[in-house]
Amino acid sequence: MASVTPPQAVHLEEAENLVASLRDGNVRALARAISLVENDASGAASVLSACFPYTGHALRIGLTGAPGTGKSTLVDRLASHYRAQQQTVGIVAVDPTSPFTGGAILGDRIRMQRHHADPGLYIRSMATRGFLGGLASTTADVASVVEASGKTRLLIETVGVGQDEVDIVRLADVTVVVLVPGLGDDVQSIKAGILEIADIFVVNKSDREGADRVEQEIRAMQSLGGHAEGWVPPVVRTVATTGDGTGALAEAIERCAEWLRQTGKLEQKRAAAWQKRLVEMIRQKLVRELIHHRLGISDLEAHALAVAARNEDPYRLVDKLVRGLLDLREDDRQHPSIER
Amino acid sequence: MASVTPPQAVHLEEAENLVASLRDGNVRALARAISLVENDASGAASVLSACFPYTGHALRIGLTGAPGTGKSTLVDRLASHYRAQQQTVGIVAVDPTSPFTGGAILGDRIRMQRHHADPGLYIRSMATRGFLGGLASTTADVASVVEASGKTRLLIETVGVGQDEVDIVRLADVTVVVLVPGLGDDVQSIKAGILEIADIFVVNKSDREGADRVEQEIRAMQSLGGHAEGWVPPVVRTVATTGDGTGALAEAIERCAEWLRQTGKLEQKRAAAWQKRLVEMIRQKLVRELIHHRLGISDLEAHALAVAARNEDPYRLVDKLVRGLLDLREDDRQHPSIER
Repeated sequence: MASVTPPQAVHLEEAENLVASLRDGNVRALARAISLVENDASGAASVLSACFPYTGHALRIGLTGAPGTGKSTLVDRLASHYRAQQQTVGIVAVDPTSPFTGGAILGDRIRMQRHHADPGLYIRSMATRGFLGGLASTTADVASVVEASGKTRLLIETVGVGQDEVDIVRLADVTVVVLVPGLGDDVQSIKAGILEIADIFVVNKSDREGADRVEQEIRAMQSLGGHAEGWVPPVVRTVATTGDGTGALAEAIERCAEWLRQTGKLEQKRAAAWQKRLVEMIRQKLVRELIHHRLGISDLEAHALAVAARNEDPYRLVDKLVRGLLDLREDDRQHPSIER
Repeated sequence: MASVTPPQAVHLEEAENLVASLRDGNVRALARAISLVENDASGAASVLSACFPYTGHALRIGLTGAPGTGKSTLVDRLASHYRAQQQTVGIVAVDPTSPFTGGAILGDRIRMQRHHADPGLYIRSMATRGFLGGLASTTADVASVVEASGKTRLLIETVGVGQDEVDIVRLADVTVVVLVPGLGDDVQSIKAGILEIADIFVVNKSDREGADRVEQEIRAMQSLGGHAEGWVPPVVRTVATTGDGTGALAEAIERCAEWLRQTGKLEQKRAAAWQKRLVEMIRQKLVRELIHHRLGISDLEAHALAVAARNEDPYRLVDKLVRGLLDLREDDRQHPSIER
């Protein structure tokens, strides 16, 4: 049995101090708190717990689209728009196709400079590898820490491919799907997959030829159904490079948020998102407790070698291990069965 | 507390009959066994357990690349090449950008027809939504069922974007990364992310302009290191539409497999893959046992509502729930801590 003791331990009190500090506007404290959560360091839960009372008020806006649709520029425009309205803004950018944190941090600095180091705006790119707790849950947690620092608008930006991204935007209140004219068939299949999650469609680069056709395609897909009752996702045209349409997009977002609030769907949506996160958190905590503290990594390695050498049946092994860990009686499951 | 009884139960014996039948060449039994595993139906573990003795001999080849690189055509060419060498072939295709199973099944039929319903070849596309056990583990399990039907070469094909795909190809013995000339900067960033997992690079559509440049870029990236010691991933040029280079690719795959075998790295790689899968399997089984049988979905819904309404701190809640589920004593974790 392996037992893990963190090399240097900081107490719950220090998590609370860290959160008090980031709430005071200390950007380094904010960055450190996010890193703790991202790395799922022991004590991350204490930080999140200390942040929790200061969350739930900001509007979370998820923006997704294929690479090259101009999402980042659009997000920056939207951020400037909100800043001009005295809203404070947090941006969390997730791009699994850029796995190198170094590049992400550099990108954040360049983007921050565009906003003249405005203290009412915070940008964070997420590394996307090896999150025990799942990328979507970790993104939601990072957004919570950013929100606790006092931001009223959270923009969560992700590349619209793969299940991870769908899961990420599902944790937002309002989901914006960004399309552009002139992308090929491969992108069309991505669109089909994300239709059902869009609250608002943006046709960015709408000064290009083909904007009408993209809008027609969206309308055609909408006629097949799939979106929430009572809300037909509007199509907003933007040109992020010039800022055209940013106001219209912000307005569409507010209208959607207002509709969600009035119909009680915002609460439902957030409860559903929390349910997913609770399952993920329980899963993560169980695995850590059991594998890392009770079973032990070295035992696991030995089992993996035995399985690879065909000396142990992994499916029976897992059954036995979980039974042992939970002290389940054998007769709980006398009849392994197949659903027809 | 919720307790789940499968509506119709089939016993372990029936799993064994199913596997005996698919080993006899019954394609419908094979399809049914795969569906059970894909849907993680109760009894899936029995099917996998019954398949296990017949696995571990086939070579697993993972092929990944961005949409539009011609992966499927290349995989079909490779399959035909192996068939001409009297190898039997299983193809498992995973494309998270095509979430509709209906389309995938249609695609399989079209691809099968190209191979004239050859009984030595089996093609299966995977639905990619909502796998409790993780997409990568489920893909590996499906590949095991296909292998148990007597296939000696397994081709696992996936779109090279996102962490899921990286995880999938990590479970293969030999990983082939497919690139094409003339793709833009977005694709370059994908390449950077998958460099470290490639055992072999393919430049497909190499009759197009720019093939030299792609090869130079690969060589430049390789000079930065990252690949396994003692094996420099070769670059193979192919034109999948004509079949050019298929033999050279197959040869490179065999050479890599031989090198992995002789250095003992194949065994290490498979043990590492099994370790990941064991963790995933334990995780999945624990969550099912605890959430679905002990805690109950309705309790979870109630907690999610309380959290969304800010009446309950999710981080403390999860701690309490897991503690309760595992009967952990409070003093095991007297000092919540943060790693510096």
